Amino acid sequence: MSTRDKADSVVEPRKERRKSDEWRTALTCIEPNKILVRGYPLDEVMGRLTFGEAIYLLLLGEVPSPGIGRLMEAMLVSFIDHGTTPPSTLAARNTATTGAALRACVAAGLLGFGKYHGGDIESCMQFLDNGLDFVRKGASYRKAAEQLLERPLEANEAPPGFGHRFHTRDPRAARLFQMALELELEAEHIQMIRAVELVLNDKLVDGKHLPVNIDGAIAAVCGDLGIPPSIANALFIISRVPGIAAHAEEERVRQKPMRQIDPKDHTYDGPSERRLPERRK
Amino acid sequence: MSTRDKADSVVEPRKERRKSDEWRTALTCIEPNKILVRGYPLDEVMGRLTFGEAIYLLLLGEVPSPGIGRLMEAMLVSFIDHGTTPPSTLAARNTATTGAALRACVAAGLLGFGKYHGGDIESCMQFLDNGLDFVRKGASYRKAAEQLLERPLEANEAPPGFGHRFHTRDPRAARLFQMALELELEAEHIQMIRAVELVLNDKLVDGKHLPVNIDGAIAAVCGDLGIPPSIANALFIISRVPGIAAHAEEERVRQKPMRQIDPKDHTYDGPSERRLPERRK
Amino acid sequence: MSTRDKADSVVEPRKERRKSDEWRTALTCIEPNKILVRGYPLDEVMGRLTFGEAIYLLLLGEVPSPGIGRLMEAMLVSFIDHGTTPPSTLAARNTATTGAALRACVAAGLLGFGKYHGGDIESCMQFLDNGLDFVRKGASYRKAAEQLLERPLEANEAPPGFGHRFHTRDPRAARLFQMALELELEAEHIQMIRAVELVLNDKLVDGKHLPVNIDGAIAAVCGDLGIPPSIANALFIISRVPGIAAHAEEERVRQKPMRQIDPKDHTYDGPSERRLPERRK
Amino acid sequence: MSTRDKADSVVEPRKERRKSDEWRTALTCIEPNKILVRGYPLDEVMGRLTFGEAIYLLLLGEVPSPGIGRLMEAMLVSFIDHGTTPPSTLAARNTATTGAALRACVAAGLLGFGKYHGGDIESCMQFLDNGLDFVRKGASYRKAAEQLLERPLEANEAPPGFGHRFHTRDPRAARLFQMALELELEAEHIQMIRAVELVLNDKLVDGKHLPVNIDGAIAAVCGDLGIPPSIANALFIISRVPGIAAHAEEERVRQKPMRQIDPKDHTYDGPSERRLPERRK
Repeated sequence: MSTRDKADSVVEPRKERRKSDEWRTALTCIEPNKILVRGYPLDEVMGRLTFGEAIYLLLLGEVPSPGIGRLMEAMLVSFIDHGTTPPSTLAARNTATTGAALRACVAAGLLGFGKYHGGDIESCMQFLDNGLDFVRKGASYRKAAEQLLERPLEANEAPPGFGHRFHTRDPRAARLFQMALELELEAEHIQMIRAVELVLNDKLVDGKHLPVNIDGAIAAVCGDLGIPPSIANALFIISRVPGIAAHAEEERVRQKPMRQIDPKDHTYDGPSERRLPERRK
Repeated sequence: MSTRDKADSVVEPRKERRKSDEWRTALTCIEPNKILVRGYPLDEVMGRLTFGEAIYLLLLGEVPSPGIGRLMEAMLVSFIDHGTTPPSTLAARNTATTGAALRACVAAGLLGFGKYHGGDIESCMQFLDNGLDFVRKGASYRKAAEQLLERPLEANEAPPGFGHRFHTRDPRAARLFQMALELELEAEHIQMIRAVELVLNDKLVDGKHLPVNIDGAIAAVCGDLGIPPSIANALFIISRVPGIAAHAEEERVRQKPMRQIDPKDHTYDGPSERRLPERRK
Repeated sequence: MSTRDKADSVVEPRKERRKSDEWRTALTCIEPNKILVRGYPLDEVMGRLTFGEAIYLLLLGEVPSPGIGRLMEAMLVSFIDHGTTPPSTLAARNTATTGAALRACVAAGLLGFGKYHGGDIESCMQFLDNGLDFVRKGASYRKAAEQLLERPLEANEAPPGFGHRFHTRDPRAARLFQMALELELEAEHIQMIRAVELVLNDKLVDGKHLPVNIDGAIAAVCGDLGIPPSIANALFIISRVPGIAAHAEEERVRQKPMRQIDPKDHTYDGPSERRLPERRK
Repeated sequence: MSTRDKADSVVEPRKERRKSDEWRTALTCIEPNKILVRGYPLDEVMGRLTFGEAIYLLLLGEVPSPGIGRLMEAMLVSFIDHGTTPPSTLAARNTATTGAALRACVAAGLLGFGKYHGGDIESCMQFLDNGLDFVRKGASYRKAAEQLLERPLEANEAPPGFGHRFHTRDPRAARLFQMALELELEAEHIQMIRAVELVLNDKLVDGKHLPVNIDGAIAAVCGDLGIPPSIANALFIISRVPGIAAHAEEERVRQKPMRQIDPKDHTYDGPSERRLPERRK
């Protein structure tokens, strides 16, 4: 009878080492003066792969093709920050105002990444896979979308990957799909989510419009790139860490310690809208 | 008399909003269907800046030049992982073995980034600045290095930025300096740390050798790029998150839950050493 | 259509305060020179309620009767520590070895309290409530236990609240039941779990024995005291914090920083078994 | 030359176990069916020591005398909560609103316990010890207090352990001192802080009054009980965990997910002020 996961699971202390105790890791090999990340010497990777490409390598085990690398960068950039109002960012700022070290502020911020916040991706990937089941059995994308949307529409709920409290058109999602198309990486998951978007918005009344959001776009792209849901989930975390860190730093530098942070009572005083210089690809 | 930072600092609850309560942020502006990061529309940044360049933009406020962008990528890649033995990675694996969500494993891992682990950078930047003070007053780099090294040598302690428990030559540091040279971004901080390296190893006896480590290399490069210590510190955190996430995922996927993790009893079973394909720049 | 929990949920910034924005808390009232916890002045509670009784008051809203207070203390004491091998304790030690502050070590340790570790309680309370459904419909406790155990026995799995990797009789569970009996607080949940224990161990062959573990005992006692599952879950966290803190402190005081912590390679060098002095109730 | 605390400190993996690798713990001994906490069987401690007394035992190694036990309870009760406005509590609520598990909310809350928030205690204990140095060299408590206060008064800053943003008389501090007196546990540290309070408030003009706050009171009491600063610091963490947990639970139960939490816009709707029943000691 399996009891391995009970209470304070304690393995009886054993002093002698048995070969069967040995565990294995396939990520990084450390030897004197050598660091191999999935087999590649880290000092070679430095300067030849970008951080985004190295992240792909580390998480998925192989160097991405240039096209996949570009989509990877775009996905990581897309979630880098969303201002001061996400509760995770506020948790980080509230930690920063106590004088805590940056790592503690970032850790506090990350703990809010779950069910309601960045956690839509795994359920969206499942949702799209359900739809693709219908497609593989012979349904058109439209028919599959209608099947998928039966229950959410009945419950008057947005399906996973759709809707945004603030944006009626998520510019990040649109851009990601555009890039996937240009890089010829668009495949069945993206087609599935587009079909759902069409059917969904046909059925909405009163001029309502539910856009695909960035969770949905990343879910679809990851599906088409063969990136599993758990790794897609990791991308959200990796992407948002710079944003959380930037907010914690700004709190530390610009504000008095131990202040009461009102999430609604702020204004933006950064640069006005500007365009990237032309020379950049 | 200042009492604002005492005990449970409580601001008396005030209901009416005063204009002076308003606080400001310069990072990201959120408006309906628009996300501006330091003024640049995020959907424009996607596909035109890499994740590494976007991190620089977010943290420092401007788009980096191509050369600085490449050094930024290299710094972020350099610290991406260091195998299973760092205590922070073990904290993450111990959290993963309890079935915790990835974000919790990453948060637990980040909390170990401090004094003894990635925290050398701010003291190393200070150390180099102290040396540069001597240089600006007229000393040669060599003389300044000798001044800097008086106290550590007396106390028989490695200066900040030098030494590694495992590597006698940190391949990541060497590569970073090489890139700085090639990109013509090498300046006084890098010269300072090279001088310290020379003098230090002249003075060591018994064939000992203390290499510049990655903390030191990043400290010197950041100094020459004008990246402040607190932001340099953020780079360590941002860089290592993918590594911690990869280890937590590998623990979840390959191992039984609630296992006793012996940091010494593992072997590497990933790919053998291999080279990046030639086509990559 | 409900979209409130999508992606980066952002409420549009609103400057004017509406009465409907006001939110309420019933826990602690802070006024100048006065702190009321659930209505009781904190300085009165100090010295008249123990910490355990105050925890009950804060979490459940009322002062416990003396008997319930004693069971509360016992439950909190029962989970206070379980040595160096739980992964949560190891996460805390691995954080401590990096020189992190105590609060960070405790936070890291807490993140491992979940599915496999202390998380059994909510499923055990549900399990017992399922059994009590049968009892309320007229079944004997024995029959209800047999119903409950059908699926676990078929799957050859220990039911929630039973079994321990290391103990064949959990001394903490036995003691808690004994106290509940003596304090005349034993009721249907405890009867239910005892019935399950009897039936389960009748059905086990090969001299196996599956004891009620501390999760199960606390689940049953909380059920009989009317403490909801979420609060019972909080008790585990509150109880174990002193243990995690003690381990982090011991790591900091007795060990070198940045050591490799082998969970199996330790011995106990504390006091030999000793008895509490007679004078204590 | 000492390099043990550099960068990613990695111990070369060693397979053979050396007796010198063995490490020791004096806290809890786990054997089959037996759990000894500092030598005492945990099932004996249950029901005979309160949670507060067991905390003292675990952290300090011995069972406290009844008087010290009562002061311990009072100290733990004193810091149990301080309403919704401390930033640590807000970090926890912001985490709870994302649907995070209770342990994550508590962890996030704890990360804000530092320099400005509960962190006064170690500096206050140092401050009092400095004063007692003067006393042991022959100064009166008054003279020693005047020496101690020279620098803070010059800098127009409250000394550690004094002042509160909200309270002009911290009821918790007063009560703790009263109990110490009644239990005849008052000694030199408490005398020192009272002397500082007298001298400080003599010197303040404009009717200002700086009370001893709870950090200061706990610092003084711990000094007189021989509880070291690091353990005193642990008491704050242990004490506040129930409060943080209660707030996270209240957020989860009473509020919608993903709300914008304004720390100023709340009212208390709990019980009105009430007194503890007479029968309680």
